[in-house]
Amino acid sequence: MTELVNPDDIERAAERIGQRARRTPVIEYGALTLKLELMQHAGSFKTRGALNRVLGETDLPPAGLIAASGGNHGAALSYVGGSLGVPTEIFMPSTSPDIKRRNIERFGATVHVIEGYYDDAQAAADERRAETGALQIHPFDHHDTVAGQGTMARELEQQIGGIDTILVAAGGGGFIAGQAAWFRDRVRVVCVEPVTSQCVRAARVHGEPVPVPVGGVAADSLGAKQVGAVPWAVIREFVDDAVVVDDEAIRSAQRELWDEFRLIVEPGGAAALSAIRAGAYVPAPGERVVVAVCGSNADPATIVS
Amino acid sequence: MTELVNPDDIERAAERIGQRARRTPVIEYGALTLKLELMQHAGSFKTRGALNRVLGETDLPPAGLIAASGGNHGAALSYVGGSLGVPTEIFMPSTSPDIKRRNIERFGATVHVIEGYYDDAQAAADERRAETGALQIHPFDHHDTVAGQGTMARELEQQIGGIDTILVAAGGGGFIAGQAAWFRDRVRVVCVEPVTSQCVRAARVHGEPVPVPVGGVAADSLGAKQVGAVPWAVIREFVDDAVVVDDEAIRSAQRELWDEFRLIVEPGGAAALSAIRAGAYVPAPGERVVVAVCGSNADPATIVS
Repeated sequence: MTELVNPDDIERAAERIGQRARRTPVIEYGALTLKLELMQHAGSFKTRGALNRVLGETDLPPAGLIAASGGNHGAALSYVGGSLGVPTEIFMPSTSPDIKRRNIERFGATVHVIEGYYDDAQAAADERRAETGALQIHPFDHHDTVAGQGTMARELEQQIGGIDTILVAAGGGGFIAGQAAWFRDRVRVVCVEPVTSQCVRAARVHGEPVPVPVGGVAADSLGAKQVGAVPWAVIREFVDDAVVVDDEAIRSAQRELWDEFRLIVEPGGAAALSAIRAGAYVPAPGERVVVAVCGSNADPATIVS
Repeated sequence: MTELVNPDDIERAAERIGQRARRTPVIEYGALTLKLELMQHAGSFKTRGALNRVLGETDLPPAGLIAASGGNHGAALSYVGGSLGVPTEIFMPSTSPDIKRRNIERFGATVHVIEGYYDDAQAAADERRAETGALQIHPFDHHDTVAGQGTMARELEQQIGGIDTILVAAGGGGFIAGQAAWFRDRVRVVCVEPVTSQCVRAARVHGEPVPVPVGGVAADSLGAKQVGAVPWAVIREFVDDAVVVDDEAIRSAQRELWDEFRLIVEPGGAAALSAIRAGAYVPAPGERVVVAVCGSNADPATIVS
């Protein structure tokens, strides 16, 4: 039985994290409010969860932190390790683009590029961890990680009042679970997934986490094969709706965020906005809707022609 | 004798503009606060001034608005014309890159590309205006334009308190004059110019506006040949210091804003931050400094390698 992440956990996470995470801005956009969480340190919300996870560990091994990631989790962990002075090793697959490697390296982690795909990088990380005794940090399936992500919702509510609904993209579910754990039944929490990677919807259908195929333009950030147990416990209670969007809608939302705000947003970061534009979620007149723009890890050349 | 733009003018401008301009976000960045005015409609502060200028005109000619511009002024005017339903013609030089033309066209203005440089575009606009009777909108040298730019300072003071100093880049001086007209002696206003385009510093030396040579990476937004008379009247009274930065410092600040926030900022928009990084302005310990990040009109390929 997984213990539900609750608002008190998130209060404690906010206190523990303190000024180490950025207070990210909000901006009104027509009838919507965008929460620009892509301006977080290292470019995504992942830094909040990683901070709370690592700061919550009272006895860090001398070998420090280790993870397999080609994307935002790796960048966030590199940032957290670098800023807390903890050695960090990241294993990434050779199929990840160079821009992502540089984004991880720049905060100080040692990056190992492993020939192959994510599973190959994970296997290499496991082997290395057996040697060094480093602490492996899961990208989403941990109580402290989910509580850390929830600090965004707490901050958002300090910034604006009267929120009816928040749209949040989901991969393994850590981010949306954090928001739902904070808002509970006070705010409608809507899950947005790519039509090509629907682990939350699959869990809702089956009543429990099940494996799903993953793919599409947002796969590198939202392509989790199964929703995590810790996130799922929150999601099943407090996520009100789960909608899907296709790759074309995601690309179009990326382009819109560039045209309107000159923001470079990764596909996963634009997914929540695309659900509004594609009509997957239709707000009622006067409904106050927040859209989480949650990650920036993209090459501008893929957006700006 | 030019009548000084004053805080009451700015209050009236804010009321007139209403919700037509975006409330742009602020974000803490170490000891600094960034005002992200590059997220304004059409990508720069220019939209505030253009809105107040056009809304202040009680008798618009049927031919609408006309201007010569390859950059932010043209985009802002196109946006204002489009959103107010006023026909707008923009003349731009063929030397401006395609990305800027698209940025102007996208809000609905008719764009004429004129063979040659800015002066050639201006000559063609003058000729056309003589035919049509359209209202020519100057990019900075008008009382209502300066008052409109000042609404940013008013909004900023609603967002955060206790500001000691604001750093603002200057071209023709309309933007910095707006901020100085609002803050007067309450906040230290520091002017930042490229070492290659120093019309404000030249006016300070000579006691009046004088022509200067222009050039460098920020010339398209900050390369004014002479500070405007309306801005100068405010600047001479209320701008406390004027510093310069070189092209390398500007490029480095652009890169920093990309690395830290995934923002695509034009050279002129990054100039104020570069003054801090290059040591051209050195804040005292505890000094609360706001840096205006004022324009986004850049091709990402010039920033992200």
